[in-house]
Amino acid sequence: MTTTGQTTKPKIVFDWRAEAATHAPGSAFEMAEKVVNKLFRPIPGSSVSEEGKRTHKVTVVGVGNVGMACAQTILTQELCDELALVDVVEEKLKGEMLDLQHAAAFLPRAKILADTDYRVTADSDICIVTAGARQQEGQSRLALVEKNVSLFKKIIPELMKHSPNTILLVISNPVDALTYVAYKLSGLPPNRVIGAGTNLDSSRFRWLLADHLDVNAQNVHGYIVGEHGDSSVPLWSSVSVGGVPIISYLKQKHIDYSPDTLAELHRMVVDGAYEVIKLKGYTSWAIGYSVASLVKSVLRNQRRIHPVSVCSQGFHGIEDEVCLSLPAVIGRAGIVSVLDSPLTDEEKEQLQTSAKTLALIQNKLDM
Amino acid sequence: MTTTGQTTKPKIVFDWRAEAATHAPGSAFEMAEKVVNKLFRPIPGSSVSEEGKRTHKVTVVGVGNVGMACAQTILTQELCDELALVDVVEEKLKGEMLDLQHAAAFLPRAKILADTDYRVTADSDICIVTAGARQQEGQSRLALVEKNVSLFKKIIPELMKHSPNTILLVISNPVDALTYVAYKLSGLPPNRVIGAGTNLDSSRFRWLLADHLDVNAQNVHGYIVGEHGDSSVPLWSSVSVGGVPIISYLKQKHIDYSPDTLAELHRMVVDGAYEVIKLKGYTSWAIGYSVASLVKSVLRNQRRIHPVSVCSQGFHGIEDEVCLSLPAVIGRAGIVSVLDSPLTDEEKEQLQTSAKTLALIQNKLDM
Amino acid sequence: MTTTGQTTKPKIVFDWRAEAATHAPGSAFEMAEKVVNKLFRPIPGSSVSEEGKRTHKVTVVGVGNVGMACAQTILTQELCDELALVDVVEEKLKGEMLDLQHAAAFLPRAKILADTDYRVTADSDICIVTAGARQQEGQSRLALVEKNVSLFKKIIPELMKHSPNTILLVISNPVDALTYVAYKLSGLPPNRVIGAGTNLDSSRFRWLLADHLDVNAQNVHGYIVGEHGDSSVPLWSSVSVGGVPIISYLKQKHIDYSPDTLAELHRMVVDGAYEVIKLKGYTSWAIGYSVASLVKSVLRNQRRIHPVSVCSQGFHGIEDEVCLSLPAVIGRAGIVSVLDSPLTDEEKEQLQTSAKTLALIQNKLDM
Amino acid sequence: MTTTGQTTKPKIVFDWRAEAATHAPGSAFEMAEKVVNKLFRPIPGSSVSEEGKRTHKVTVVGVGNVGMACAQTILTQELCDELALVDVVEEKLKGEMLDLQHAAAFLPRAKILADTDYRVTADSDICIVTAGARQQEGQSRLALVEKNVSLFKKIIPELMKHSPNTILLVISNPVDALTYVAYKLSGLPPNRVIGAGTNLDSSRFRWLLADHLDVNAQNVHGYIVGEHGDSSVPLWSSVSVGGVPIISYLKQKHIDYSPDTLAELHRMVVDGAYEVIKLKGYTSWAIGYSVASLVKSVLRNQRRIHPVSVCSQGFHGIEDEVCLSLPAVIGRAGIVSVLDSPLTDEEKEQLQTSAKTLALIQNKLDM
Repeated sequence: MTTTGQTTKPKIVFDWRAEAATHAPGSAFEMAEKVVNKLFRPIPGSSVSEEGKRTHKVTVVGVGNVGMACAQTILTQELCDELALVDVVEEKLKGEMLDLQHAAAFLPRAKILADTDYRVTADSDICIVTAGARQQEGQSRLALVEKNVSLFKKIIPELMKHSPNTILLVISNPVDALTYVAYKLSGLPPNRVIGAGTNLDSSRFRWLLADHLDVNAQNVHGYIVGEHGDSSVPLWSSVSVGGVPIISYLKQKHIDYSPDTLAELHRMVVDGAYEVIKLKGYTSWAIGYSVASLVKSVLRNQRRIHPVSVCSQGFHGIEDEVCLSLPAVIGRAGIVSVLDSPLTDEEKEQLQTSAKTLALIQNKLDM
Repeated sequence: MTTTGQTTKPKIVFDWRAEAATHAPGSAFEMAEKVVNKLFRPIPGSSVSEEGKRTHKVTVVGVGNVGMACAQTILTQELCDELALVDVVEEKLKGEMLDLQHAAAFLPRAKILADTDYRVTADSDICIVTAGARQQEGQSRLALVEKNVSLFKKIIPELMKHSPNTILLVISNPVDALTYVAYKLSGLPPNRVIGAGTNLDSSRFRWLLADHLDVNAQNVHGYIVGEHGDSSVPLWSSVSVGGVPIISYLKQKHIDYSPDTLAELHRMVVDGAYEVIKLKGYTSWAIGYSVASLVKSVLRNQRRIHPVSVCSQGFHGIEDEVCLSLPAVIGRAGIVSVLDSPLTDEEKEQLQTSAKTLALIQNKLDM
Repeated sequence: MTTTGQTTKPKIVFDWRAEAATHAPGSAFEMAEKVVNKLFRPIPGSSVSEEGKRTHKVTVVGVGNVGMACAQTILTQELCDELALVDVVEEKLKGEMLDLQHAAAFLPRAKILADTDYRVTADSDICIVTAGARQQEGQSRLALVEKNVSLFKKIIPELMKHSPNTILLVISNPVDALTYVAYKLSGLPPNRVIGAGTNLDSSRFRWLLADHLDVNAQNVHGYIVGEHGDSSVPLWSSVSVGGVPIISYLKQKHIDYSPDTLAELHRMVVDGAYEVIKLKGYTSWAIGYSVASLVKSVLRNQRRIHPVSVCSQGFHGIEDEVCLSLPAVIGRAGIVSVLDSPLTDEEKEQLQTSAKTLALIQNKLDM
Repeated sequence: MTTTGQTTKPKIVFDWRAEAATHAPGSAFEMAEKVVNKLFRPIPGSSVSEEGKRTHKVTVVGVGNVGMACAQTILTQELCDELALVDVVEEKLKGEMLDLQHAAAFLPRAKILADTDYRVTADSDICIVTAGARQQEGQSRLALVEKNVSLFKKIIPELMKHSPNTILLVISNPVDALTYVAYKLSGLPPNRVIGAGTNLDSSRFRWLLADHLDVNAQNVHGYIVGEHGDSSVPLWSSVSVGGVPIISYLKQKHIDYSPDTLAELHRMVVDGAYEVIKLKGYTSWAIGYSVASLVKSVLRNQRRIHPVSVCSQGFHGIEDEVCLSLPAVIGRAGIVSVLDSPLTDEEKEQLQTSAKTLALIQNKLDM
């Protein structure tokens, strides 16, 4: 991606207007201009200079499967009025933009822009970063980090330059390390940098329990926290179904279960991502819905609680400055607060171990 | 309603917090404060000062049947994050606020405020004015004007004081005269003052045609323009069904129709409002949906075309500075442009007559 | 309401077609018929006899404030394709129908019917009964029962006659006794008779806690069960915020609270309804959203858990055949299952006391 | 895909329950069963046998980019309660199913099934056929037909066997010939076989005009009819913007335009699909939205007008039994009626030429 700040007019390559303007007289462009000038007239005395105030603009960096699932779900759920796509592969980028634009008759209006030049992202409320080398089958999330840090060094400063007050939503993996990297590179206060973290793992967890119990997943509550991936920590003490805390219920009703049973369920959650990658080559739909859910909580100031990757220093005895997922209240300011949920000693220890591992990696990064 | 600008802290009468704070130790309020302080912790270094940037705030003035239908429909359609209700009748106002708040578990979160003091409306994106004496059965819309002008003299300056960059959406009747009054009293540029006008009449028109033809009203297009009420003007030349211009079709297929037939349909539209008022005492649901539709076009920058009451001087030979409904493009700036639709000589004449009548009335107003 | 079964064609009083058909030649009706015949042509060989299969039809009995809030919210949320309104007051009924129909251009299409004759309700998936004398300020819910039983004797058999496989959703108060009455009068299996019960009380409870804690009510969980009204039972042990069981949390963090504090919060919930009635004369919006939520769970087979009034004999030691609210899984079959939530001895006792009181009343009813 | 009708229990390969049931005691499956048995109890006397009545089930055949864009958009728009996916590539199929299921916490509940065995599609309301060899860059749509007919001979009978009253929605290309093939193979009445046809071309057309004029595409009306692809026919006479018929307007306002200008716009529409294929390798998002729009019109009985491929014999002088796109009213019965829109002689001639070409191809098919 281009990292230099051009001072000339951004070309916004994929704008038919620019292309059309060079057409000979008698072009559709010329005809349209005449219709506009005659049919659509401003009221005398109008002041439309404030246009754009308080609309919602979302940028998606990276138009691979994940980026496009995010973009499409955000559009379908009518969460923004303006969507900017950025990537380095110009053809793919233009193709995805056109494919979304062609649906105009079936959706509320949103302005859809795409360019390799970050000027197209100017004044975004949220920037979603999905760019990065993809996790390969069998590859640990942590192995990706070096490769993606150098990419983030190009992306984050560009985003900040054009939207200095934005909120960064990091999706690229390994998400915890990259959320920290984005935080450092951006210079934003920590509440304005959110990693998708275990928001999706927790949905997989709730789906698995809900499917076992044949009820709606929205009545099954439970969080997976910590590192997104193998070392994530399920908070069994917080799991409840229809208001019934499930571990207490098992005990009270003398239903046998062993730590192995619970570990089996957690393993199924962790393996879920790997299984999808193995079967279809990548994950896309579920992460798209997860991100759209976070975007709604921010742009519509929902103050909903999501487990997301956040600067966790000082919580649960974590001493290093690392990002890990904890349940957090998400609203218009980003991370409004972090829940200091009561954890068991074992859960705390697991979190602290993850934190130390992440800190070691971070220390080796060239930032 | 209070018209003086208090300098003390606004009381926001209906805030349980204020009431609760006076409670003895051991109150729910005190317990909640302790939970909040321990459970919800900010991330060190956070900056939440920008909270509220680019959320959507809507004010509704007047919590009668029309105002509440607007407020409830806007909430159900998830169009705003913050809703402020204002009225002079404190009890009714608090009752309506609580009744909406009680639905919190069934809706996305929106902050719902209510007060007799306009400070509660501060920084609104749109202010919907429904207050005013209601049209009585058999009463012409024009007869209401004097009564409601004096009311607007209290309301509009208060709204402008607390939201100087707002968009005014005038619902109170007679809507055309009052849109002009709101324009004059507010000092806003004309694109930021919108009268609901014939947006609803046009829906009634399309419903009636769609119901006769048993197709979806969204495939029946047609505008009623001009004065909202008896002298409104149906633009028959713009009526089409599934892309088929209906008047041409009648001619081409040798289907007999007379001006009387068309006049009968228009009469059914005009009488629609009177009939509902006669039968149930007032209109509410349809105007609520009509207003929500306009609010969506503004807040989500839809650039949709609605027939709304707008400063029409200079269009179609209208010489006086009056507001009448014309098809207009509505977006984040309010009225982005007005369509200079081709009208027949007869239609132009009808518009000009309405304009002159309105100008006469306006001249008599004490403003 | 008419209770006799006419054998003549139902007049569907408010059908303009019937009125129009009597018009002289040249009427809009005649013109429309000609357009339809020429413009809309069936494909040769078509079979449209299955039209209507698996659409969603909802009936609302009673077009007062509660019935209309239900109807309007259901329409806005696009939950049904056909809506039938029934009432005895013909004028009000027609007025409400027209007011909804006039919004056609702003909503997806739904067929809206209204009549005093129950034939209009034929083949409904759900029948929502809101008719009944309204609770007066200060009046206990139980005092209403005698009056409304005689009304239900007219309504329920009519509904069953025209929709023998429907699901009944009882809103009228006192809702628990009337749910039982509807169950008995209808002859339906108990899973197909649902009382709105404490579904709304629970929302009020969650809102109150969420507002104290300034988070989204969708992250605050808790049920109020038992009798809808003064003797309802808050299940404090099930209350959690972001996965944190709140009572345990208070203890763990040594936050002082007394039973009085919890009782104060419950009192605020119970008083909520009375307060709204006192302030605005009735409740409407919140109950409308509550009912729409239940309708969605049924028609879209959501298997969501709602606290609703249900035949509770055999649960928690309840010996009498009475209806009380318990958390239940709601899906396409109505009440799919009832949660046998663990209760404290005190909670059980409160439930059993309510059950006995209700049984006493039921025994006095003339059914 | 399997074409034989197994008589053994369908394996529904991807059901964790089946896998789990073989687990050793102490499995999560066993634990869940015990919780379900204790926590969720039926009401005595319940009859849940009618479960499933009037829910909405959609089948998607083919889980490539198009099929999955359809499936995901339908889920996001909450159009069905049950979704069945079928494909021959078992791994991809399971991966896509899991990826959708993992989003359970972010969406209303829908049962998502997938199998290579068509028994999973039983009792579908709509079956969407996206399977087929994909159009290659530069390849004409007609060249694909032979290849896909043999595939349809396997798919259509299987679908009909398990859902004899379904509606078929054909997406595979060349869509017109394959819609005819599906009609013949299924034995369904012609109103129950719908080809996606020019529904998407028309959206592209409206978007292009709307973008030129900078208004919402929902205010720009116009149909492209005839064969989906190069020989499609834009009905310029039906194009209107905000109720203004655009060709008349150009004439009336003396705005120069030539047939070439209009042809240029049509060419941009036709090339749109090819351009996206060239740039990103396939089209997906826009066709997904187009299909979801058709599904909504059917399942919610919208009676909306869409240009879809339909048996066109007898319309506009078409003599052969072929499928071509014409504006049609779509509702619960499928194609409720076809609009006999007035066409110019030139437009009629173009349609008739396409029809003859298609008939020639059809005659060569081995069916």
